[in-house]
Amino acid sequence: MERKIDVGILGATGMVGQRYVSLLENHPWFKLTSVAASPNSAGKSYENAVAGRWHIDRDIPPHARNLTVRDANDVDSVVKECSSVFSALELNKQDTMNLENKYASLGIPVISNSSAHRTTEDVPMIIPEINSSHTDIIPSQKIRRGWNSGFIVVKPNCSIQSYLTPVYALMNDGFNINKLIVTTMQAVSGAGYPGVASLDIIENIIPYISNEEQKTEDEPKKILGNLINGKIIPCSSLSISAHCNRVPVIDGHMACVSLGFEGRKPSSLEEVISIWNSFTSVPQKLNLPQAPTQPIIYREEIDRPQPRKDRGADKGMAVSVGRLRKCNVLDLRFVGLSHNTIRGAAGGGILNAELLFKKGYLQA
Amino acid sequence: MERKIDVGILGATGMVGQRYVSLLENHPWFKLTSVAASPNSAGKSYENAVAGRWHIDRDIPPHARNLTVRDANDVDSVVKECSSVFSALELNKQDTMNLENKYASLGIPVISNSSAHRTTEDVPMIIPEINSSHTDIIPSQKIRRGWNSGFIVVKPNCSIQSYLTPVYALMNDGFNINKLIVTTMQAVSGAGYPGVASLDIIENIIPYISNEEQKTEDEPKKILGNLINGKIIPCSSLSISAHCNRVPVIDGHMACVSLGFEGRKPSSLEEVISIWNSFTSVPQKLNLPQAPTQPIIYREEIDRPQPRKDRGADKGMAVSVGRLRKCNVLDLRFVGLSHNTIRGAAGGGILNAELLFKKGYLQA
Amino acid sequence: MERKIDVGILGATGMVGQRYVSLLENHPWFKLTSVAASPNSAGKSYENAVAGRWHIDRDIPPHARNLTVRDANDVDSVVKECSSVFSALELNKQDTMNLENKYASLGIPVISNSSAHRTTEDVPMIIPEINSSHTDIIPSQKIRRGWNSGFIVVKPNCSIQSYLTPVYALMNDGFNINKLIVTTMQAVSGAGYPGVASLDIIENIIPYISNEEQKTEDEPKKILGNLINGKIIPCSSLSISAHCNRVPVIDGHMACVSLGFEGRKPSSLEEVISIWNSFTSVPQKLNLPQAPTQPIIYREEIDRPQPRKDRGADKGMAVSVGRLRKCNVLDLRFVGLSHNTIRGAAGGGILNAELLFKKGYLQA
Amino acid sequence: MERKIDVGILGATGMVGQRYVSLLENHPWFKLTSVAASPNSAGKSYENAVAGRWHIDRDIPPHARNLTVRDANDVDSVVKECSSVFSALELNKQDTMNLENKYASLGIPVISNSSAHRTTEDVPMIIPEINSSHTDIIPSQKIRRGWNSGFIVVKPNCSIQSYLTPVYALMNDGFNINKLIVTTMQAVSGAGYPGVASLDIIENIIPYISNEEQKTEDEPKKILGNLINGKIIPCSSLSISAHCNRVPVIDGHMACVSLGFEGRKPSSLEEVISIWNSFTSVPQKLNLPQAPTQPIIYREEIDRPQPRKDRGADKGMAVSVGRLRKCNVLDLRFVGLSHNTIRGAAGGGILNAELLFKKGYLQA
Repeated sequence: MERKIDVGILGATGMVGQRYVSLLENHPWFKLTSVAASPNSAGKSYENAVAGRWHIDRDIPPHARNLTVRDANDVDSVVKECSSVFSALELNKQDTMNLENKYASLGIPVISNSSAHRTTEDVPMIIPEINSSHTDIIPSQKIRRGWNSGFIVVKPNCSIQSYLTPVYALMNDGFNINKLIVTTMQAVSGAGYPGVASLDIIENIIPYISNEEQKTEDEPKKILGNLINGKIIPCSSLSISAHCNRVPVIDGHMACVSLGFEGRKPSSLEEVISIWNSFTSVPQKLNLPQAPTQPIIYREEIDRPQPRKDRGADKGMAVSVGRLRKCNVLDLRFVGLSHNTIRGAAGGGILNAELLFKKGYLQA
Repeated sequence: MERKIDVGILGATGMVGQRYVSLLENHPWFKLTSVAASPNSAGKSYENAVAGRWHIDRDIPPHARNLTVRDANDVDSVVKECSSVFSALELNKQDTMNLENKYASLGIPVISNSSAHRTTEDVPMIIPEINSSHTDIIPSQKIRRGWNSGFIVVKPNCSIQSYLTPVYALMNDGFNINKLIVTTMQAVSGAGYPGVASLDIIENIIPYISNEEQKTEDEPKKILGNLINGKIIPCSSLSISAHCNRVPVIDGHMACVSLGFEGRKPSSLEEVISIWNSFTSVPQKLNLPQAPTQPIIYREEIDRPQPRKDRGADKGMAVSVGRLRKCNVLDLRFVGLSHNTIRGAAGGGILNAELLFKKGYLQA
Repeated sequence: MERKIDVGILGATGMVGQRYVSLLENHPWFKLTSVAASPNSAGKSYENAVAGRWHIDRDIPPHARNLTVRDANDVDSVVKECSSVFSALELNKQDTMNLENKYASLGIPVISNSSAHRTTEDVPMIIPEINSSHTDIIPSQKIRRGWNSGFIVVKPNCSIQSYLTPVYALMNDGFNINKLIVTTMQAVSGAGYPGVASLDIIENIIPYISNEEQKTEDEPKKILGNLINGKIIPCSSLSISAHCNRVPVIDGHMACVSLGFEGRKPSSLEEVISIWNSFTSVPQKLNLPQAPTQPIIYREEIDRPQPRKDRGADKGMAVSVGRLRKCNVLDLRFVGLSHNTIRGAAGGGILNAELLFKKGYLQA
Repeated sequence: MERKIDVGILGATGMVGQRYVSLLENHPWFKLTSVAASPNSAGKSYENAVAGRWHIDRDIPPHARNLTVRDANDVDSVVKECSSVFSALELNKQDTMNLENKYASLGIPVISNSSAHRTTEDVPMIIPEINSSHTDIIPSQKIRRGWNSGFIVVKPNCSIQSYLTPVYALMNDGFNINKLIVTTMQAVSGAGYPGVASLDIIENIIPYISNEEQKTEDEPKKILGNLINGKIIPCSSLSISAHCNRVPVIDGHMACVSLGFEGRKPSSLEEVISIWNSFTSVPQKLNLPQAPTQPIIYREEIDRPQPRKDRGADKGMAVSVGRLRKCNVLDLRFVGLSHNTIRGAAGGGILNAELLFKKGYLQA
């Protein structure tokens, strides 16, 4: 590879932004050259800007310490420093959309973690193991909006990553899943910083996360949808019902899933486990650096996966599943787990960028 | 009331036994006169026997401190001291059955928390708000076994108490519920002491509790069953699928429930809430001392019930529910919560004893 | 008692304010008639103002639910409704001083939890078991400031309450303690709400609390000081060194203490324990309703006191101590514990008010 | 290096044993060839023996999975498979001594984590950064006991590792420290598995750890002692007073330390920090693989070190210190932190083995 692509991070001082900074250290294709955040942080060194709120358990990468934080709204200052951006903005929906649009309009591909553009019809929401082909919408997105090299791609909410890939793996094998009842137990890091107050969650569970159930129910349909005439038509054959809970865990979202098939069903639990353990997809075939070797790992132990023990599987990018058994009401039950700030956020964003790079959408 | 009934506790030094000791302080009808446990504890004062492992957040009641602990296997020593026993034995199933049978055969009513006799056809498993009439099986139980004044009554597993009464309240109002998918988040006190290792549960969730899902799926059917010819015929029209999880909470089992109706459905969420809030049953009508005033409390707050905040509702005896909403796969969704060592164990046992007393089954 | 004193709470919606509301329910001498908070809450019912952030594990007292919250800055509206106020303001120091002064100048006795006036020379800082006589400074405080019936009394920081009474009990028995090294482990409720972020404290310890060590080192000297010529002259013979840590506990501050004597030392550990267990003081003699029966409870168990198990001792007002043993560097070591939002905050404030009432400083 | 040394682990299935297994994966000098444990585990594959209780957050190293677990008492079977052993036995003191002696008598160097031999006069207790020269006692140990190539070396208790190296670094620079008051906050992993019950430690602190304070007070004196006539004469000029607490943290022991100097004192806090940050010792000079690059890392942040954020410093082998400030009673105060199962247990043991190898005490 001749030279690395200069990348920036919008919202670089937040929880997800910090994960991007950490994961981009020594990336073989991307070089972190710009960090942008709120006006408060602008002008400070990155090290100073995150002082007292660096939450990754490794120190700030040396290269990032001295980068000068830009005001993310000062688009010119950022686009001078990089050719693509990861968006981990924590603004409201409209401001986020406007700002991401502005970067795209200036020729900057935007790979976003935010929920702002997730329901935009011509913005693909990608989990590379599932719907890498949705990148094909990018040319029509550019045309429609009059953008040149810039465009916007998003990744979905962290809450769905612990079970959607296992569900897709079965669909990919020809099974038609039409019902999902999902109860999530989600880590506090998913709420950002300061996020959940300790008084609310120590020795407690909160059975509610604002907007989370709707995202959990809607986003899978878009990801599993079809690209028709420059629009993504959501999958209509799947009903999802989600119960989302916050639990006193730092990282790692877990889901208890009951699912129902329409038509043919797997002949045995072993068949399902075999499909999961042998599942690979585009990121594995393309040898994307951030891709897990085995995207779905079935744990044979009766009491796994567990957040603290399994969230780090394959550098936090694999989904761990376990406890597959028959469901008395629908057809099957299982437990899924993924690392919400790696696979479910920054690691997933980087994987998307790697996919885009391999497909020729990113330029140095 | 002329004089109180002398009661004993089998397994008085364990977690549930301690709750019994605490809740029986100043009981208007019952007087704790005998505490029995394993041979290790026998001969010690109760205070010494629980030294270093008293887990209730109030001190040992003064009256109980100096009771001499009996060996629960030394039945004669116990029956001399009391006329009824609460069984919180932590032996294996066969030993528990044998010992409970022995007490009953000696004329001692046994109100049990253990799971040993829960599947015995002629032993009623009672939640007094639901199936108080199942006590009618006691005479035929006595005849079949040749017991005189002794008999055995059990209470169900703690995991089902957070949602079964709300489900029953709807059935009681004429709605036919035929499908339940339940994900529980259960407190560590449910596993006894020492129970769950801190290394397993701090900053973690364990998606498995031994035998718990089967109990959660089977026991409601017996409770909702019909008494026919001296046997309890389980309800066959209800399918239950349970996901049971252990969470880092001290007390309070929570459940996320999706349920489906066969036939008529409630006309609105408000109708359901109204049914719940106005539900009362036999324990309320009989003014049983341990009974909650309002057995089901619907919390209007969007993020309730929560274990730490709601487990203590009405001295730990009320079931708190919340977040009632439509389910996209079945019909309705809600969250239920109850205190597992009070409503779900010792408090539930005492309520059963109060019911039995009022019905004339217990004598001084 | 002919009629109760109407009292108000400034900062009634915060953590400490909520404890006041809860503890004042059914108080024999005081009636809560006014709740004041920030302009945001003004005009709402108290119930609405604390919706979603009520942190007490019992529901809001019925009487308080419908009180209309006043803007604490709108002094006139508050003084119309009550004749004394508890201040749990969470403003900055200068604004707190100004506002508390204003209430006092309008004839309202102010019993404050805030730290604003703790270093004011003529404002007594009172733990009634230790320095109830410091109320004697009130007349000169009034004269100096030209106040009529109004005045200001404060209570000290929650961090010192777990060990200062035990230390004082020994001083009161004639022992001269001149050195204290204290390591505190403090609950998250001490930081208010939202306070400590769960991301910072779950499965972690934070060895720093802003300004806490200085308060812990300075305030005991004033409490143990002498009232001379209308000023409180701090005790100069005692050196204190504090290490303050935040721990993942909801309520209950614990302290590990090493102390040194100058001159005579206790003859045995038993002597110290006896002094502690038999210590009583003015609140007990006056039968103040909020006073603990036994202010210092020595726990004989090798591993007590513990926050979760002992914070509630005597309705949260007793200090629990344990593990008394020789220190290899100074003279003695022990562990102390008190409930930080009851004894260390609202309960302590109410006890102060009761003392003032008995001494004739509060009028209906 | 021509070939690796074959090493075994006694107590390989326990918490510390598991850390050894994990840390020895791909070790440049040592090859794990034997795993021994209790008779229960004997004959099983290592993978089966630890099923359901593997506590490291990475999976079992592939090479170790299929090693057959030996009965540690069956000494012959172990000595056939390795030439040195790490002892992480969890037997009582006498049984541990006997078994370690037996291995040594058969020519096997024993590097032990257990406390059994820590007070044995001719057994060196080594922290390689402090007293690597104590290995010089090995020849006289062998002669006295008639051992040939076998001998015993121990590492100290995990509780002292968070502050003793920083204390030593100052002594090493010529300062005479004679007083230490230490309050530890220790992680649950220090108690092994199942160890601390979740019911005891969730939302709680336990101010007592059996035997821990005595170890914390005695062991530093031996480590800082002098080797005279084949015996280690403990340092007599240092008084230590320890308060040991168990806290709800998985890994990482923290200590709040007050210390006093006799004679000359550092001229400034900066001087102390400089001594710490620049301190290196024998393991660094010898480039031992397990040695941290910088053994003592001073954190400038006001609220560090913290267990969750700093325990992993330099692969868990560095000691993190912070909050250096004057003490009002003694001279200086600081906070120290180290990883109790890496630096304080298995990592420390491996570092000892590396030192012994470099000094020629271990043979292939």
